[in-house]
Parts: sequence; C-alpha cells; structure tokens
Amino acid sequence: MKVNPTRTIDELKELRALTADENGAQRVAWTDLWMKAREWFTSKLAGLPVEDGYDAAGNRWVTLRGETEKALILGSHLDSVPNGGWLDGALGVMTALEVLRGFADRYGGRPPVTIRLADFADEEGARFGRSLLGSSAVAGTHSIAADRGRTDRDGIRLEDALRRCRVDIDRFPEAEAERNHAAAYLELHIEQGPVLESMDLPLGVVLGTKGVERHSITFHGQEAHSGSTPMNARRDALAAAAKLALEIRGIAGKHPDAVSTMGSVKTFPGIVTAVVGRSETTLDQRDLDARILAQMFREAREASERFAAEERCTVEWSRIWSIEPVPFSPQLIGFCEEAIQETAGVSHKLPSGPLHDAAEISRAGVPTVMMFVQSLGGISHNKIENTKEEHLTLAVEAFARLAEKTAAWIAG
Amino acid sequence: MKVNPTRTIDELKELRALTADENGAQRVAWTDLWMKAREWFTSKLAGLPVEDGYDAAGNRWVTLRGETEKALILGSHLDSVPNGGWLDGALGVMTALEVLRGFADRYGGRPPVTIRLADFADEEGARFGRSLLGSSAVAGTHSIAADRGRTDRDGIRLEDALRRCRVDIDRFPEAEAERNHAAAYLELHIEQGPVLESMDLPLGVVLGTKGVERHSITFHGQEAHSGSTPMNARRDALAAAAKLALEIRGIAGKHPDAVSTMGSVKTFPGIVTAVVGRSETTLDQRDLDARILAQMFREAREASERFAAEERCTVEWSRIWSIEPVPFSPQLIGFCEEAIQETAGVSHKLPSGPLHDAAEISRAGVPTVMMFVQSLGGISHNKIENTKEEHLTLAVEAFARLAEKTAAWIAG
Repeated sequence: MKVNPTRTIDELKELRALTADENGAQRVAWTDLWMKAREWFTSKLAGLPVEDGYDAAGNRWVTLRGETEKALILGSHLDSVPNGGWLDGALGVMTALEVLRGFADRYGGRPPVTIRLADFADEEGARFGRSLLGSSAVAGTHSIAADRGRTDRDGIRLEDALRRCRVDIDRFPEAEAERNHAAAYLELHIEQGPVLESMDLPLGVVLGTKGVERHSITFHGQEAHSGSTPMNARRDALAAAAKLALEIRGIAGKHPDAVSTMGSVKTFPGIVTAVVGRSETTLDQRDLDARILAQMFREAREASERFAAEERCTVEWSRIWSIEPVPFSPQLIGFCEEAIQETAGVSHKLPSGPLHDAAEISRAGVPTVMMFVQSLGGISHNKIENTKEEHLTLAVEAFARLAEKTAAWIAG
Repeated sequence: MKVNPTRTIDELKELRALTADENGAQRVAWTDLWMKAREWFTSKLAGLPVEDGYDAAGNRWVTLRGETEKALILGSHLDSVPNGGWLDGALGVMTALEVLRGFADRYGGRPPVTIRLADFADEEGARFGRSLLGSSAVAGTHSIAADRGRTDRDGIRLEDALRRCRVDIDRFPEAEAERNHAAAYLELHIEQGPVLESMDLPLGVVLGTKGVERHSITFHGQEAHSGSTPMNARRDALAAAAKLALEIRGIAGKHPDAVSTMGSVKTFPGIVTAVVGRSETTLDQRDLDARILAQMFREAREASERFAAEERCTVEWSRIWSIEPVPFSPQLIGFCEEAIQETAGVSHKLPSGPLHDAAEISRAGVPTVMMFVQSLGGISHNKIENTKEEHLTLAVEAFARLAEKTAAWIAG
C-alpha cells in the first residue's frame, strides 16, 4: 500500500493556515472555526469512493466499504484546545485519511475489510470541561444527565451549543450503533510527553491509557497570628500539605511508569502574617496497572492521615474523578511494534498518561492500539507544539503498515 | 493610687455596644464609627483637669500637667480591624484613662510628673495596609511619600481619607513635637497569642517587639502535563516550595522565641492536570535578637537555593518588608516585673511577635515597656477575642503600679 506523507504534512499546514491565529490553533469544538475545519475536510474527500456522514453525537464517519462489513476504524479528532498546536488530533485524522486513500488505491475502491475514518467530536472538552464527549457516546459511556447543563465561560449550556451544531444530546445513545461490525480501532497521535525524545526514538507503541485517581484533599488546622503563635502551638495546615506534596513522589517512584502530581495548593487565609488554617490541594495519580493505582491511592490516603495527625490537623478527601486503566489489545500491540520496527528500525513500548478517544473505544470492547510519534520538548496544548517532519513521515508510513497488518488480521 | 478596674471593664463594654455589630468591632481608622468612638471617649474626660487635643497625624493626646514637663506617656489605640475584638487597643486606652484618673485624684490634679494619654491613629492599618501610621509620625519614622497614594478597596486614597478627618499628611512631621519632654512610654495590651494561657499566668512583661523579615519567594520550574511527564523529567516548583515550607520550621526551632511562617502558597497554572510551573510563597520570620533574625534569613535563603537546585528550578526573593527588633528599656522591664509580681504573685517575660505603637515610640528613643494580659485561646482580630474579667482587673491594677513606679523614677 502506498501513502504520501508529504501530502499529509502539506494538508496539516493548510489546516493550520485556515484555523490558527498568532496564538495557535483555535479549532475548539462546537465553534464556527471547528465547523470550518470540518468543511475543509469535506473538500479532501472529493473523488474518493466513500460514504460521509455524522452520527447522533456529532462524530464524523467516512466509510470505504470493503468485501466484509467487519470494519477497521482509524480515528482521532480535529478539535483543538484554544491556543493549541497543529498536530494534536489533526495528525491522526489526516493520517487516517491518507491511509484510507491508500486502501482505496490499492484495492480499486473495495478493500478486503471495511475501512472507516472517525473524526470524533469534542475530544478536548476545552469549552465545557467534558473531554472525550463524542467517543464516549460511541462507547456508550456518555453521561448525558451530568453533561447537559455544563456551561462555558459565557454561560452557554453544552446542550444548546450542541443544538446549534444540529446535535441533540438526547439522541447520543444512537451513536453506539457505529460500533456494529467494528473489528479494530487504530489511532496515531503525538506523544505530548518527553519519553520518546529523551530516548531519541521517532515512534512508540502505546500499551494503553493509564488509569487516573483524581482527588481534592483539604487539611484543616488553625489560623493563627504568625508573630504571636509559638512554633509548638501551631496547627499548620500548609505543613501537612507540604509533607504530602513530597511523599506522593516516593509513592509513585516505586513503580516505573506511575506518575503522581499535586497540581494546586490554595492556602487560607493565605496572608503573609497568618499561619495557614486550611490548605486545599489536588492529587492526580496515574498508572496502567489497576492494582498499582489502587495501592498508590491507598498509600497517599494513609500518608495524608499520618501527616494530619503529626500536625494536629484533620484531612478530608473528595474524589474529583477517576477512570480505570485501559490496556490495549496485545494482538494489535504486536502489529504496532512490527510496523514501527519495519519503518524506523527500533521501537519502544510506553503507556499514555493523557486520555485519548482510543481509551473510550477500547473500553467498549473493540480491539485497539495507538501509535505515538515524538513530540519536540514534550510540549502540547501550546502553539509551539511540534514534531520533526522526518518523524511525521515515518509516522504516516508506520501507521499505514499497522493498518495493513490489522486489516489482514480482520480479514483472516 | 487607687484605680477602679470595674469601671474600665464597664467602659469597654459600653464602647463595644456602641461600635460593634454581630461580626465584632468595626472601629476601622478614618471611618465614621472610629470617629464616633473618639467622640464617646471625649465624654469620659468631663470633669478631669486635663488638656485634650490632636496632633498633626490625628493622634489624640490627653495631658494632665504635673510639677515637671517631663512626661509619662500611657498609650494604645481605639481603632480596630474590621470584625475585630473588644480589647485589642481599647483595653490600653481605657486603662490609661483609669490610671490618669488615679494620678489626678491622688495628687489633686497636679502629679509630680506630667501624665499623657495617647490614643494613636490607625495602629491596625486595616484599611490602607499601613499599620502604626500615627505612632510612626510621632516617632519620625513616617513614610509619607510611600503612603499618600495607598488606596482602600474602594479606590479611596489614604491622603483623601485623612483629609476627611481633618488630617493633612504633609503636616505629619509636626507630630514629632509630641516627643518633647517624653520621659517614658507604657502600654498595656492583650497578648494576642497563647503563651500566658499555656502557662496559666494572667500577666507578662514584654521584652520588646520582635524584628521581622518578610519576603516573597518564587520558584520557577516547568509547567508540564501530569499524565505524560515522567517523575524524573519534572521541574516541579511546588516540590521546592514544599521543602522550604518544612525547612523554615527547623531553622526557627533552634531558637527559643523565634517564629517562621509560610502563610501563602500560590501555584501556577494551579490545575489538577499540570505539574506546577511556578509557585509563589511568602515567608515571615521573627525574633527579638537581630543576630538570630539575620541568621534565620540567611539559612532560609540558602535552603531555598539548595531546594531549587535539587528540583532543577530557580528561585527569586523579594523583600516585602522588614523591621529591626525593638528591645524595651531594661529599667522599665524591671518595674513591670515588680508591678506584676506585687499584683499577681508571679510574672513571666516574653517578646511580642505582633508590632505595637510601643515599638515606634521605643525606636524613637523614649524608654518604653509593655505589659501583656492573657488572651483566651490566643485569639485576636476576631469577635471571639476575650480575656477573663479577673485578669482584666489584675491588669488594670498592675498597670497602675507600673505607672506609679515609672513616674517616681522620672521624678527622681
């Protein structure tokens, strides 16, 4: 199968010119510029022997019918965060298109299996704080009741923003029909982290998306005057939080791929002349192994209670959100590794910390794998997000190989 | 000399009824309610053989002329923080009035030395963030240029708020004349801390006010995705701040009276899914010994640099404010100890963490001492601020003894 990576890179640049300003990509889901990007994408389908349409959740499906209804899905998302990069999501969609073209060419418009391109709606959740919105509808893990009333910063409700794009949130469950005949799901994405760059590797096989435990943790001590309160009379809620901020690193450090982050600390009253009476912190723990994740959560909780006791404070936990790890298909991981080795000579397996549409599709029982391409500086969600063109070229080629291997497996 | 502590307690309750609401005292300097408190105070002077007036900084001076111009000053402040307590400042002023009455009674209106009551303007700095405003004018340590343009939260300038109370900030230097003939300064205040209560003592001799080093300290690391950034690739600005928050306690812990507080931490971007790229913290260090304070500052600075290096961050210090320790007069400390022992049977010496008008007057070279009375729960700047009435009674009696001893020393 022949693909033309240069065309993909050129198309990505064309999309950038159309939808980015001096601060980066502005293809935020459910906005005019996002719809403009999707319109532009339509123009790229001209002359291809495909069916093009949208499901009930606003996901776009481009279908190249094959000898069997059993379908290989190649997906990602065209939406971006505000001030985003040119590759996050868009690389996956445009590469999927290139591979779809490859299948159409090679098999005279009718490949052995059906090939479908999915452009998921609102992967980023940038406007309403609900990521993976479209793919969760396909997976049947949508949360309509919780999401309908979410508002953006102008007070516009999610439900209304969707309606403006002709999407009725109450019809989301109909999108699950897109899973019929789905035999495998593949997604190419930039790594958005520093691992491949630090190993000087262009491409990596993604083992799955890490599970996440996300909590807010509040320590209650006693506000006191910084001048008149002796050190031994204090109940310092910041000291307990500081101990936890350091301890969570050791808890994660026992496991090779685990991460643990205290991303926010707020101090109350938060003035220079008062001992902190209350500290509000956040904890984000991730690992690909559910048992390790559960252990990390338990250890952090125990540590917080120990530190609270040491500082004569109390501690309160409240779950913000959590998700189980989603390990990808061992079969497809094997194909992905072969494809990368054949293309780049060397491969590496790594879990994904960030979530992706692939996680939703995989949770729904569709064999899934992702391929990562190196991110320069590990930076994403930023206009300076970038990947070397030679690596983009390798990525398109390796992803095409992965798609061929997977199609053969489905057909066989 | 006879004093009537019950009258003082009754007057304090009368003032509370007049100037507090359900949230506490509201006698914020330069507001109508503060002026109302001062008007009420005028009514208490009726029939006393005194001169009553205001200096150029809005401080009130009530003068009982004695055989000599050499003056014993008894002072404190009627202004409060918003939602303040009934004793902070007011106890000192009303006790000074009771002692002034005692001198007038005992000496038929003409004591051996001149006795002056000072009700300083804006000790709290609650509205414009500039504490000790009136007493600094008397001390000659005022900072007119820096203060004139300070604004309250409604955007009103300090200069204009003062003018409304008929105080012209440009005339502040004239208030220094009040120091002429000042031979000693005495101030009674609630402790606003837990030391006397923890020792079950009603009264304490104040050795001086601690020096303060107050800084903002910012750590710069690298914002990064909490899911995709391995632990060893992070430059976590919160980790460096957490280490410092814990270390400053050990640095202070080497010295019996030293305190060290991180009162505020702000994290940027401060979201659950990002490693902290920048943390802004505050540090407040205090001790009565200037050498110890300098050592603590140096050690904290060195520690911050060490922690920044360990976390591959950088650190930046910026001084918010600092003041030298102000040790009080050894002669007057001795009188104060005697007075407390004669009244309560047992005394204790302690430094003051909070600043007081006494610090300004002492810095100006006037022999000074303060007496503390126990605060329940160590709490102040709050409507629940309180002191047992039996302790208030002892305080008025002991302060009268201290004033007698000091007057005799001035006369002698």
